[in-house]
Amino acid sequence: MNTVKRTQKWGTVLVPCPVALVSVGDETEVNIITISWTANVGSRPPRMGISVVPKRHSYDLLQRIGDFVINIPTTDHMDAVMICGTKSGKNIDKFGATGFTPMPSTKISSPMISECPLNIECKTWKVIEVGSHNLFIGDVVAVHIDEAVLDANGEPDLTKFAIPAYMPLVREFWAVNQFLRKWE
Amino acid sequence: MNTVKRTQKWGTVLVPCPVALVSVGDETEVNIITISWTANVGSRPPRMGISVVPKRHSYDLLQRIGDFVINIPTTDHMDAVMICGTKSGKNIDKFGATGFTPMPSTKISSPMISECPLNIECKTWKVIEVGSHNLFIGDVVAVHIDEAVLDANGEPDLTKFAIPAYMPLVREFWAVNQFLRKWE
Repeated sequence: MNTVKRTQKWGTVLVPCPVALVSVGDETEVNIITISWTANVGSRPPRMGISVVPKRHSYDLLQRIGDFVINIPTTDHMDAVMICGTKSGKNIDKFGATGFTPMPSTKISSPMISECPLNIECKTWKVIEVGSHNLFIGDVVAVHIDEAVLDANGEPDLTKFAIPAYMPLVREFWAVNQFLRKWE
Repeated sequence: MNTVKRTQKWGTVLVPCPVALVSVGDETEVNIITISWTANVGSRPPRMGISVVPKRHSYDLLQRIGDFVINIPTTDHMDAVMICGTKSGKNIDKFGATGFTPMPSTKISSPMISECPLNIECKTWKVIEVGSHNLFIGDVVAVHIDEAVLDANGEPDLTKFAIPAYMPLVREFWAVNQFLRKWE
């Protein structure tokens, strides 16, 4: 028997979405933006996409610098997630406002956010126009993880930190915090 | 002080990723594939991307049909998620194997999965080559939600169903099940 369905009003409802703090810049200027329109888009080579509205302050910076870091915050960083998602880098210094510490990346210009346990260095490969947003596709050139979140065997242990997700369907942040099963 | 970081071996580590059951087909052939390489890529118009390996059985079907449905399962559907992610539609009928019920979409050929509480109808707009995967970008043409997961005001209520996430960093599925805060 078919379920009773209702038509939903808006289209960007995918759940869950990642919560990425994207850092971009060089010695002269640096910014952090919260982006949930992001995904792995290829595996060999590893490539990731981030969608950005061209009028956003970071857009020109992303184009000029040609690289960016996708930093994954924990649920302890929700105030910073809100600041970087609602304030413009035109008006405030996001590292100063959040208390985050910039840390040099290994292969690109843009700095990582030290406090985020997972940092993905990306070099822009292609920019695709998709309407309101342009999609920056980047090659993943290095990935770093905090030693503090590794288990005794040196493997990442998700029980050591809770990761936030954004749920556009209801405009809420939720925690991803219950193990279900291995992919196998 | 900077955190001690370790370089991680593989590049596709984004957490969390959605778990999408993508249904595609018509009266002659239909298939379901599990895809975590998916995101909102634009808001106005709403557009979503799914990344698919060209040698996958559904690839030709996606190209021929020109539309697809992104169905979001609940944590009760993990066996189906594994079947649709590891078996090929060349060898088995995925609707039969999972026990899922196809339900006609309202604007496209591909059927929805009745048992999934959220169904997003997409019409392919563009296909981008990104290496191992090709990225299908689709216009969201309709969204449906089960009435059973709405609250008294007719709004979606995420406490009524638990949504799975895929964590590529550790190759594990986790549940998104703790409210943190509203986006505002």
